[in-house]
Amino acid sequence: MHRSRDLGALVFLDLRDREGIVQVSFDPAFTDAAALERAAKVGVESVVLIEGEVALRPAELRNAELETGEVEVRASAITVVGPADTPAIPVARGRGTPLPAEELRLRHRHLDLRRPELQRALILRHRLAQVTRRYLSENGFLELETPILTKPTPEGARDYLVPSRVHQTEFYALPQSPQIYKQLFMIAGFDRYFQIARCFRDEDLRADRQPEFTQIDIEASFVQQDDVIAFTEGLVQALFAEAGVQVTTPFRRMAYADAMERYGIDRPDLRYGMELSDVSDVFRGTEFGVAATVLDAGGRFRAVVAPGGAKFSRKEQDELTAMAKGAGAQGIIFLKRHGDALEGPVAKFLRPDAIARLGLNDGDLALVVAGPDHVTSPALDRLRQEVARRLDLVPADAHELLWVVDFPMFERDPKTGALAAMHHPFTSAQPEDRALLASEPWRARARAYDVVLNGTELGGGSIRISDPADQAQVLQLLGIDAETAEKRFGFLLEALRAGAPPHGGIALGFDRIAMLLSGAGSLRDVIAFPKTTAARALFEGAPTPVPAEDLHELGLQADHGGTE
Amino acid sequence: MHRSRDLGALVFLDLRDREGIVQVSFDPAFTDAAALERAAKVGVESVVLIEGEVALRPAELRNAELETGEVEVRASAITVVGPADTPAIPVARGRGTPLPAEELRLRHRHLDLRRPELQRALILRHRLAQVTRRYLSENGFLELETPILTKPTPEGARDYLVPSRVHQTEFYALPQSPQIYKQLFMIAGFDRYFQIARCFRDEDLRADRQPEFTQIDIEASFVQQDDVIAFTEGLVQALFAEAGVQVTTPFRRMAYADAMERYGIDRPDLRYGMELSDVSDVFRGTEFGVAATVLDAGGRFRAVVAPGGAKFSRKEQDELTAMAKGAGAQGIIFLKRHGDALEGPVAKFLRPDAIARLGLNDGDLALVVAGPDHVTSPALDRLRQEVARRLDLVPADAHELLWVVDFPMFERDPKTGALAAMHHPFTSAQPEDRALLASEPWRARARAYDVVLNGTELGGGSIRISDPADQAQVLQLLGIDAETAEKRFGFLLEALRAGAPPHGGIALGFDRIAMLLSGAGSLRDVIAFPKTTAARALFEGAPTPVPAEDLHELGLQADHGGTE
Repeated sequence: MHRSRDLGALVFLDLRDREGIVQVSFDPAFTDAAALERAAKVGVESVVLIEGEVALRPAELRNAELETGEVEVRASAITVVGPADTPAIPVARGRGTPLPAEELRLRHRHLDLRRPELQRALILRHRLAQVTRRYLSENGFLELETPILTKPTPEGARDYLVPSRVHQTEFYALPQSPQIYKQLFMIAGFDRYFQIARCFRDEDLRADRQPEFTQIDIEASFVQQDDVIAFTEGLVQALFAEAGVQVTTPFRRMAYADAMERYGIDRPDLRYGMELSDVSDVFRGTEFGVAATVLDAGGRFRAVVAPGGAKFSRKEQDELTAMAKGAGAQGIIFLKRHGDALEGPVAKFLRPDAIARLGLNDGDLALVVAGPDHVTSPALDRLRQEVARRLDLVPADAHELLWVVDFPMFERDPKTGALAAMHHPFTSAQPEDRALLASEPWRARARAYDVVLNGTELGGGSIRISDPADQAQVLQLLGIDAETAEKRFGFLLEALRAGAPPHGGIALGFDRIAMLLSGAGSLRDVIAFPKTTAARALFEGAPTPVPAEDLHELGLQADHGGTE
Repeated sequence: MHRSRDLGALVFLDLRDREGIVQVSFDPAFTDAAALERAAKVGVESVVLIEGEVALRPAELRNAELETGEVEVRASAITVVGPADTPAIPVARGRGTPLPAEELRLRHRHLDLRRPELQRALILRHRLAQVTRRYLSENGFLELETPILTKPTPEGARDYLVPSRVHQTEFYALPQSPQIYKQLFMIAGFDRYFQIARCFRDEDLRADRQPEFTQIDIEASFVQQDDVIAFTEGLVQALFAEAGVQVTTPFRRMAYADAMERYGIDRPDLRYGMELSDVSDVFRGTEFGVAATVLDAGGRFRAVVAPGGAKFSRKEQDELTAMAKGAGAQGIIFLKRHGDALEGPVAKFLRPDAIARLGLNDGDLALVVAGPDHVTSPALDRLRQEVARRLDLVPADAHELLWVVDFPMFERDPKTGALAAMHHPFTSAQPEDRALLASEPWRARARAYDVVLNGTELGGGSIRISDPADQAQVLQLLGIDAETAEKRFGFLLEALRAGAPPHGGIALGFDRIAMLLSGAGSLRDVIAFPKTTAARALFEGAPTPVPAEDLHELGLQADHGGTE
C-alpha cells in the first residue's frame, strides 16, 4: 500500500507492485462498512489482498499523467496479508522530496528496493542479461561456468583469499576475472564462450567500484580483432536497443596515440569537440622565460579552447587551476580573445599570429598547459571535461560509442624503465610490431581494444598470445622469471603447449552498462545488495568479526603484530 | 587433429571440433607434395588450418556409422597454427579403451575437456541454462543477482569465510544459498525471482558433492504450494525436453509419511515396485524370541520382497546382511519360498499363513528387518535398491518424477528431544497443523516439497513464513533465542516486519540435473573445472599455501596451536 487518502465517507488506496500503481477506491456504494473501516486503517507499505472490479474512473477524476489514471479498482473486500510497521525510510515520496541519505537507504535496503526507480533499474538489468544471453547463444557462444574458488592470479589488483577448513593454512582465491579459464576453454576446443561472471577485488575502493562486480565475459577462437569488434558491436547494439536507445554500427575507431594526442585520455568523450592542440610554436623562441625551459626538456605547450570561456570569472579560473594542479600540472596559462586582442598575463610575449594559431574566436578562452605529455594529457583531459560541463556543451541524450585500438603492449616506468602490461600479460603484439619486442618493446603495439561510451570505458579485450614461445618472451619482458611464471599460471602455459587455436575476446562491465542504460546515478542503484565504497554490506552487516574458535578451525588466529 | 593415418602416398587426418569429427584427405591428385609432407608430420592434438573442398567420399570408403562418414575434405593446403606437444593423456581413444585415471584427467583438464563426452555434456549444460532462463523469464520471473560476499547464515553446513584487507579481522562468508536474499526480493516487491546461483559449502565432501555448486534458485510471491509445484513441473519438463526426454505433468505426489512407510526413504525410486510392508503380525505371538522384544519396545518387523531372490547365494546374503548392518540394523531375517514351503532359520516359528502375509511367490525372497523405524527404514531402503540392482529390475530409460510433500517441520533428536528444522528455519507450517506448534511441534507438517527423479532429489522448497510472529515462534522452537536470531539474520526479521507478501519457492540442483540428463557418471563430468572429493583443484593447484606476509596483510597468522 503505497499511499492512502481517507476522505471519511470515501477511502482511496494507491496499490503498488513492480509494474506500477493503481488506485483502489472504497465507497459505501460498493464497499461494506467493515471493509471501509479496515481500508482506512491500513498502514503504508502493508501488503493487502483486494477484491473488486476494475472500472473507468468518473470522467472528472481521470488523470492522464498516470499510466493507470483512467481506471480504478472498486473494492468490495480487503485483507491485510502482510501488515507493516511504520517504515524506517519512506518509499512513497512527493515530487521533489529528496531521498533519505544513502547510508540510511542501504541500511534499510528492503525498503529502498521498493522504490520504483530501483525496481525499474533492476528489471532493466534482468532484461539486459536475457538479451546478452540470447544474442551470444544465437551467435554460437556457449555459456560455461568458471570456478569462484580458484588460485591467485597476477592481474594487478588484489585477490580475496579464502581459507579452507579441510586444508588448513591453504587458501583459494576469488577470481579477479575468468581470464585464464576462458583461454583454457578455447584451448580445450569450446570455440566460443561467454559468461555473465562475478569478479572480485580486495582493494581500497574508489567511489565507482564494488568489491564484487559482474562482467560479460566473452572469448572466441579463430578470430582477429575485427571479428571481436563486430560481434561486440552487435551485442552492445542489442543491449542499447533493449533500453530504447538506437545506435548504429560500426562504431568509430581511434588509435590510442591519437586519443592521447587529441583528448589527453584513452577513453575520450566524443559528445563534444574541444580537441587538444599542440601550440608549442606559439611559445617557441619568445621572451616568455618558461618556454625555453619546457621545450628544451622535451615538453610541449598544449591547449584546449573553451568556446565562450572568456566569461569565466577569476574564481572560476582559480578552480580550473586548482584542478590542473591536482592532475600534476604547474598551472594554466589562460589566453582569452576580446575582439581582436589576446589577453592574459603571458599574451604580450607571444607571436602576433597567436590568436589564429590557438584558433580563438571572439570570447573564447584558451587553457594552455606546459610540460611533458604525461603531465599535460591528464591535466587537459580534466580541464576539457570540466569546461564542457560548465559551459553546458554536453548533449544530454547523445551516445557516442568509440573503439580505442592500437594500445601499446607495455607501460614503461618513467624512472626505472620497468615494463608493465598495459592490458594483461596474455595480450599479443600486432604482427608488424613483433620484431620490436626484441629491440624496443615499449614501442610495440598490442592487439588490444577498448569500447568507450561518452568517455566511460564499457569494456576491453585483446587477441591473446597463443604461442608458448611468444608468451615466454612477454613474461620475460615483464620481469617474470620462468620459475615464477610456472608457479603462478603453469597450468595455462602447459595448455598453450598442448595445441592452442588463435583466440581473443573481451569483457564488458555489466554493472556499468546497466547503470548507464537505466540512467542510475551509481553502481549501487543497479546492484540489489551492494557494498558501500568502504566495502561494507550495511544491511546484512558484513564483514563481521568471528569467534576465535572459528578461526582456529581454519588454522588461523588474529595477527597481534598486525596493523590493528 | 584427432587422429592420423599415413599411408605413404595418401594421408588422412581426422579433424575434431566441438561439433564432431571430419576426415581430411591428402592425395597427390589434389595436394601438392609439400602439403602432403606437412600433413604426414602433424602431431596429434595440434590445431591446423586446412584449405580444401568438401566432397563425397568414394562409395567404397563411405562410413554410415559416422555422422560425417559420407564426406571428406580434399585438402590443398595445411598450416599448423597451434602445434601440440605429445599429450600427457590421450584424447582420441579406441573403442573400449578405458579412460586414464580420474586424477590424471583432472590434472590435465585442458586435454580431458577435449573429450567429445565432456564437450557434449558441457554443451548440454549450456542449453539447459538457456532453457531455464527462457522458461522462467517468459513466466514473469526476474533474474536478480545476490552477493557472493555476504554474512554467515545458519543453514547447517559450514560457511567459507573470507577475510578482508580493508577491514582486518572481519570476515565475509560465501553463501550456502541465496535463501534469505530471495525472501528479501519478495518482501521488496519483485514478485518473482530466479537465479542460476553459485553456492558454497566448506565441509568434508561426500563423493557426490562439490565445495561450490550451482542451483536454479526460484522464489515467488502470492503463491501456494500448488503454484510452485506447477511452475517447477513446467521447468523440469522443458529441461528434460531439451535433453530429448518427454515427461508428462502433473508428476506423482506422495506424502513424506507414505514414502517413509512404503520405501523407507523420502526420495523413493519409483522405477520399480518392491514396496516395504509391515509384517509384524507374522511374528507377533510366535515362539521366535526376538519378536516380543522388538514389538514390546515399539519396534516393528518390516519386509521387502525380492522377486526371484531365493536364488541369492549364501555369499550374496552375507553381503546384503553387511549392508543392513552398515545402515544400523541388527541383521536380516531371510525367508524364501520354495514351492509351497517357507524356508529360513526363523521360518519354523512363523504363523502358517506367513507366505501369504509376506506376499511371496515361488522363488521369492523376503528380507525382514526388525527394530524402530529409524533403524528399519534406512536399512530396508538400501536393501531394496541393492536387490533391485542385483536382480536387474531397474529399467534403464525410465524417468520417474515424484513430489514428496507434507514433510514434518522438525526432526526430533531421539535422545535430547531437541528440534532441528527439517528444511530450514524459514519454512512455514501447514495451516491445519499450526496449532500443533504450541503443543506437539514435532507432529506439525510443513509446507515443504521435494522433487525426486529415480530416487535422486532434484530439488526442494517450501512456502516461507511471512508473519514475523510465526517466525519468532519457530526460531524459539529451534532453540534460537531472540538475541541470537537478531544477530544472525536480524535483517530478514526486520524485513518481515516491513510488510511481507506470502511467498515461497524452490531450489533445483543444476549440476545434478545436468549430470542426469547428460548421462554423465559424476558431477565432475558436468563442471568444467571441478574440485576433487578432497576439495582440491588439481589442474590449477588450489588451495595453496600463501606467504606469511599475505596473511599479515589480512591481520591473520597461522594458528600454531592448530591441528596441523
